[in-house]
Amino acid sequence: MAPFRTVEWVGGTDGFLRLLDQTLLPTQVVYRDCRSVDEVCEAIRTLCVRGAPAIGVAAAFGLVLHMQQDDRASTERFFRLGCDQLGRTRPTAVNLRWALERMGRRFASAPANVDSEELRNRLLEEARAIAEEDRQMCAAIGRHGAALIADGQGVLTHCNTGALATAGTGTALAVLAAAAEQGKRLHVYADETRPLLQGARLTAWELRQLGIPVTLICDSMAAQVMQEKRVQLVIVGADRIAANGDTANKIGTYGVALLARAHGIPFYVAAPSSTFDLTLPGGEQIPIEQRDPREVSHGFGRQTAPDGVEVYNPAFDVTPHELIAGIVTEGGVIGPVHAESVRRHFQGRSSHP
Amino acid sequence: MAPFRTVEWVGGTDGFLRLLDQTLLPTQVVYRDCRSVDEVCEAIRTLCVRGAPAIGVAAAFGLVLHMQQDDRASTERFFRLGCDQLGRTRPTAVNLRWALERMGRRFASAPANVDSEELRNRLLEEARAIAEEDRQMCAAIGRHGAALIADGQGVLTHCNTGALATAGTGTALAVLAAAAEQGKRLHVYADETRPLLQGARLTAWELRQLGIPVTLICDSMAAQVMQEKRVQLVIVGADRIAANGDTANKIGTYGVALLARAHGIPFYVAAPSSTFDLTLPGGEQIPIEQRDPREVSHGFGRQTAPDGVEVYNPAFDVTPHELIAGIVTEGGVIGPVHAESVRRHFQGRSSHP
Repeated sequence: MAPFRTVEWVGGTDGFLRLLDQTLLPTQVVYRDCRSVDEVCEAIRTLCVRGAPAIGVAAAFGLVLHMQQDDRASTERFFRLGCDQLGRTRPTAVNLRWALERMGRRFASAPANVDSEELRNRLLEEARAIAEEDRQMCAAIGRHGAALIADGQGVLTHCNTGALATAGTGTALAVLAAAAEQGKRLHVYADETRPLLQGARLTAWELRQLGIPVTLICDSMAAQVMQEKRVQLVIVGADRIAANGDTANKIGTYGVALLARAHGIPFYVAAPSSTFDLTLPGGEQIPIEQRDPREVSHGFGRQTAPDGVEVYNPAFDVTPHELIAGIVTEGGVIGPVHAESVRRHFQGRSSHP
Repeated sequence: MAPFRTVEWVGGTDGFLRLLDQTLLPTQVVYRDCRSVDEVCEAIRTLCVRGAPAIGVAAAFGLVLHMQQDDRASTERFFRLGCDQLGRTRPTAVNLRWALERMGRRFASAPANVDSEELRNRLLEEARAIAEEDRQMCAAIGRHGAALIADGQGVLTHCNTGALATAGTGTALAVLAAAAEQGKRLHVYADETRPLLQGARLTAWELRQLGIPVTLICDSMAAQVMQEKRVQLVIVGADRIAANGDTANKIGTYGVALLARAHGIPFYVAAPSSTFDLTLPGGEQIPIEQRDPREVSHGFGRQTAPDGVEVYNPAFDVTPHELIAGIVTEGGVIGPVHAESVRRHFQGRSSHP
C-alpha cells in the first residue's frame, strides 16, 4: 500500500476529489482538492493527475462533481456536457473514454423519475467501483507479471506506471513491486522520460519509497545500459492498445522497444484490459496528442532553447505488436502478441466495452 | 562565417584566450577571458568550451597561457605540468591529447638556449596553426559531406557539431551548412541531447543563425520522427574514433544509430582525421568519461529527481562501425567503415600521430 493517495474521493455525494499534485513531485507532496468538473479537467490537462488508469478514475469522480451542479432542467443533456468536457482533456488515453462510457451506462440505467440526490449516489457508487476495480486489476497484473521477472535481473522502464498512475499499485511498477515482495532482487533503470520527466520525478520517487533499488538515466542512455548488459527485461505501461496489440504509450517507448529488440532483450507491456480499444484494428488509427512546445523549450523554470524555435512534441508513440513479447493484463499474459491472441483474451469477457 | 567567435586568442604572446561561454546560451551571449591555464581547465571541465576540435584548440592556447608563468627554473618540466593538467580535463576527446602532443613536438623542436619570449612565440604560432588548420578541415569536411545530402531531405543530428564545437564551421553541421549554401533545401531535426541540452541550447541556436530550418525534439522522439519518414539521413560528430571506425560520441548517439538502422536510414559521422586514435583497435578500448549525477538530477536550474537518487551519467557511448554508413573527414568520405578502409585513409598521411 502506497504511503500516499493519488486520487481519492472525500465525503459523500456532496464531497470532493482530492488529488496528489504530481507536477510538484519529487520535492513537494501537495494535495489539491477539486470541487468542480472544471478543476478536474484542468488537473488532467496539466498532468496534476496522469497515468491512463488514474485519469479514468479521476474523470469518473469528476462527473459526480459535475452532477452536484445539476439544475434539473435537462439532466441528461447536462450529464453529457460533463462527459464531453472531460473526454476532450486527453485524446490518447482510452481508459478516460472507457470510464465515461461506464458512468454513462450507470446514468442510463437509473429510472426516469430518480431524484438528483439518488442519481449522484448511484454515480458516486459507480466511480468508487471503477476505483476499486482498478485496485484489484493492479494487484492481478502484479501477480501475473511477477512470474516473468527472475531473481537478480536488471529491468528498464519508461515513464511512470506505479501507484501514481492508477488507483492501485500500478501496472508495470506493480509487476516489479510484486516480484520484489516475492523476495526477488531487482535493479530498476528508470528512463527520466522527457519532456516532463515522469521517470525522474515520479518513478524514481516511488521506487525509493518501495525500497526497490533504482538508477536514474536519461532516455538517451538506455541503449548504452542495454549494451553493457545491465538490463535483462523491459516493462512499460500503455495508454491505448489496438485490437492487434499495437500499443500507444509515452513518447520514447517505441524507441526503447527497438533498442531492446536490437539487444535481444524481451519487451513487455503491462496494462488493464480497459486499455484496449478493440474498435481500432491497428496502432496507426490511435490519435496522438500533440502537446505545448514549451514543455520542450522551457522545461523546469528555465528557457533551454532559442526564442521562437520550432518544436515537435508528440505525447505518445505507437509500438508495433511485433516488438512486444507479452502484454500483462489482470486476466493473464497475452503473448505472443497479435490480433488472434488479443481476440482470445477477450473471448467471453462481458465487462469490456 | 559565424557571427560569433567560439575560441579566440586576443593579443600577442602576453595575450589571453577569449571563449564564448556556452553554458549561458541560448539566452545570453557572454564571452569569458581566460588568463591562466587553471581558467582554461575550468572552462573545459564546465563545458564553457566543448566540442572535441574546439577543446583541442583551447588547450593549445591554454599551454601558451601556462608558459606565460614559466619561471625558467625548469622549463620543460613546467611545460609538461601544463600538458598534464589540461590532458586530465576530459578523458574521451582525443583531439585534446592530439593538440597537446603537437604542442609538445613544437616545444621539443626549439633550440636548448631559446629565450622564453621566443618559446612562447613559437608555441603561440603552433596554437594558431592548429586553429587555422581546424578552420580549413571544417571547410573540407563540409565540401566532402555536402555531396551526401540530397535536396529536400530531412536530416537528424545529435548534440552540437557546429561553429561552437570547432574553430571553424563545424563537422556535421559544416556538412549541412555547405549543402544549404549549394542551394539544397534541408530540414534539420535536432535532438535536444540530455543531460546538458547541447542540441536545444546550441544546435538550434546555430542553425537559426545560419537560416537553416530546424525542429527541436527530445531525444526520445527520434524513433517517432524516423517512423514518420521525416528524416532520410542522420549525421553526427565524434569525440574519438578507433582504428576500426568504432566511434565514441555524445551519449545517445549509439541509440540513434540503432534506430536509424531499424528504419533503413543511413547514419554518417563527420570528424577531422585528428579524431582517430589509431592506437586503439576497437571502440571497447575508448575510455568513457562519467560525469556529475547532478547534471541529470538537477538540470534546468531545478531539482527534477528525489534527493539521493542513484544516477548513471556516462558522457559518451560507442557506435560500432557496422552501423556507420560513412565517416566524412577533411580528406574525403571513409565508407564502408572498417579497419581496412580506415587504414587506407591514413596511408601516406604524415601529419597524423
